[in-house]
Amino acid sequence: MTLKMDVPGLQAFLARDFGQVAEDFRVERVDADGLTLRLRVAERHLRPGGTVSGPSMFGLADVAMYLAILSRIGPVALAVTTNCAIDFMRKPQAECDLLAHARVLKLGRSLAVGDVMIFSEHQPDPVARASLTYAIPPK
Amino acid sequence: MTLKMDVPGLQAFLARDFGQVAEDFRVERVDADGLTLRLRVAERHLRPGGTVSGPSMFGLADVAMYLAILSRIGPVALAVTTNCAIDFMRKPQAECDLLAHARVLKLGRSLAVGDVMIFSEHQPDPVARASLTYAIPPK
Amino acid sequence: MTLKMDVPGLQAFLARDFGQVAEDFRVERVDADGLTLRLRVAERHLRPGGTVSGPSMFGLADVAMYLAILSRIGPVALAVTTNCAIDFMRKPQAECDLLAHARVLKLGRSLAVGDVMIFSEHQPDPVARASLTYAIPPK
Amino acid sequence: MTLKMDVPGLQAFLARDFGQVAEDFRVERVDADGLTLRLRVAERHLRPGGTVSGPSMFGLADVAMYLAILSRIGPVALAVTTNCAIDFMRKPQAECDLLAHARVLKLGRSLAVGDVMIFSEHQPDPVARASLTYAIPPK
Repeated sequence: MTLKMDVPGLQAFLARDFGQVAEDFRVERVDADGLTLRLRVAERHLRPGGTVSGPSMFGLADVAMYLAILSRIGPVALAVTTNCAIDFMRKPQAECDLLAHARVLKLGRSLAVGDVMIFSEHQPDPVARASLTYAIPPK
Repeated sequence: MTLKMDVPGLQAFLARDFGQVAEDFRVERVDADGLTLRLRVAERHLRPGGTVSGPSMFGLADVAMYLAILSRIGPVALAVTTNCAIDFMRKPQAECDLLAHARVLKLGRSLAVGDVMIFSEHQPDPVARASLTYAIPPK
Repeated sequence: MTLKMDVPGLQAFLARDFGQVAEDFRVERVDADGLTLRLRVAERHLRPGGTVSGPSMFGLADVAMYLAILSRIGPVALAVTTNCAIDFMRKPQAECDLLAHARVLKLGRSLAVGDVMIFSEHQPDPVARASLTYAIPPK
Repeated sequence: MTLKMDVPGLQAFLARDFGQVAEDFRVERVDADGLTLRLRVAERHLRPGGTVSGPSMFGLADVAMYLAILSRIGPVALAVTTNCAIDFMRKPQAECDLLAHARVLKLGRSLAVGDVMIFSEHQPDPVARASLTYAIPPK
């Protein structure tokens, strides 16, 4: 399998197409097995009590899988999320970035499916797990 | 069934416990059938192309169900989301608020389950559908 | 909206295309709002302890939604389930049929989405809730 | 981590508590990483067209995760499935057993969460992926 986008290409895509949220994320790794995306946790991602908010974790999973798919099909820019199932399993650490590991499990002509495991950095147990489906528009 | 919190009570809870995001939301209705929550769509909720972002819709569904549960059990403040399955079905209108209708389907001792249907205001077809599970801490 | 299949048409489709499981099910109602399917609960659907098994409830939800979609698009026979999220909320009664109420929420060119609520007959509270997505093959 | 049940113990549990469906399944492996369960595909698991039915795959995922949890907590027998999200990604081969690889991602006091990847034997790409939550009753 040849990747169509590398780390700098994906990061540039983020900056161009995701506007102000792009600075929240950093692509750490992309290869045939998948992609790792960092959420630079800041005040605006937190809920009272000091934990990372659910929407921030959902957004992290969604962007990680989106970029993992683009790394395979190139910057077509139009895949849309059709479904996400997410399990919140442990409270993330507040003073700690989150790392999302995304895997593409199926890349069909019209649908792509994958899953994402999210960790607080340096912690062994996942804080959340998500599976996502994207519709790929016809060429 | 007697509700333990009404619209002003829920709105005050939001303002106190959800800090800066509270102003995004307005409780429109709460009764024995469920709760309607409005997302006042603003620039920060949009994705390029003018559509409401996935994390904004996820957050709307999550807060709507959270408040619907609290309206039944009172402001215990500690229920946490353990699972969400969400289907994104249509592109929301950008110049338009979103309305989330939440129903509590089960309210057990340790788990609560419900679903949420999200509409662009004045549109007949739902833009998204979510089901959510919350863990209720032991007293 | 004009339905393309009525109750006898759907029941005949079941008998022809679902072989031995067809006799488990009876279409009770189909209209613009959706479809109600009965699972005639028998010994083979039960788990020890006298409750209806998870796979039996999954199958009921899946067939109910499948038929609800066919009632709209006609007997194209080839839609496949791509995703299901199911919540098991209460123990079904063993000596009791199950009724599944299916709604089609989106019927697009390539994807259909709907949800299903399952009840033990004559009981007010749902035993399970499911949402399902189907891929519709190109013509 | 010490496992509380090994392959023969789990297989005996299946035979005793799952009655007639027990013969459908064979535990292939259990260790600290998870459990592999085989579905011995037979005529009764097939849909017209020769593919394994959705309920059969759902049941395989459910039993695999159930046994993976029991291998950790012992034969308490009362955990119940509260939620399952399943993606059907490829058509299984009909003349071929299915293998389900289950991982326990969280084992809390009241909830256990895990995921399952299902393959047709000897095929590299998964046919389905599921995540499941179980309620663990208080002691």
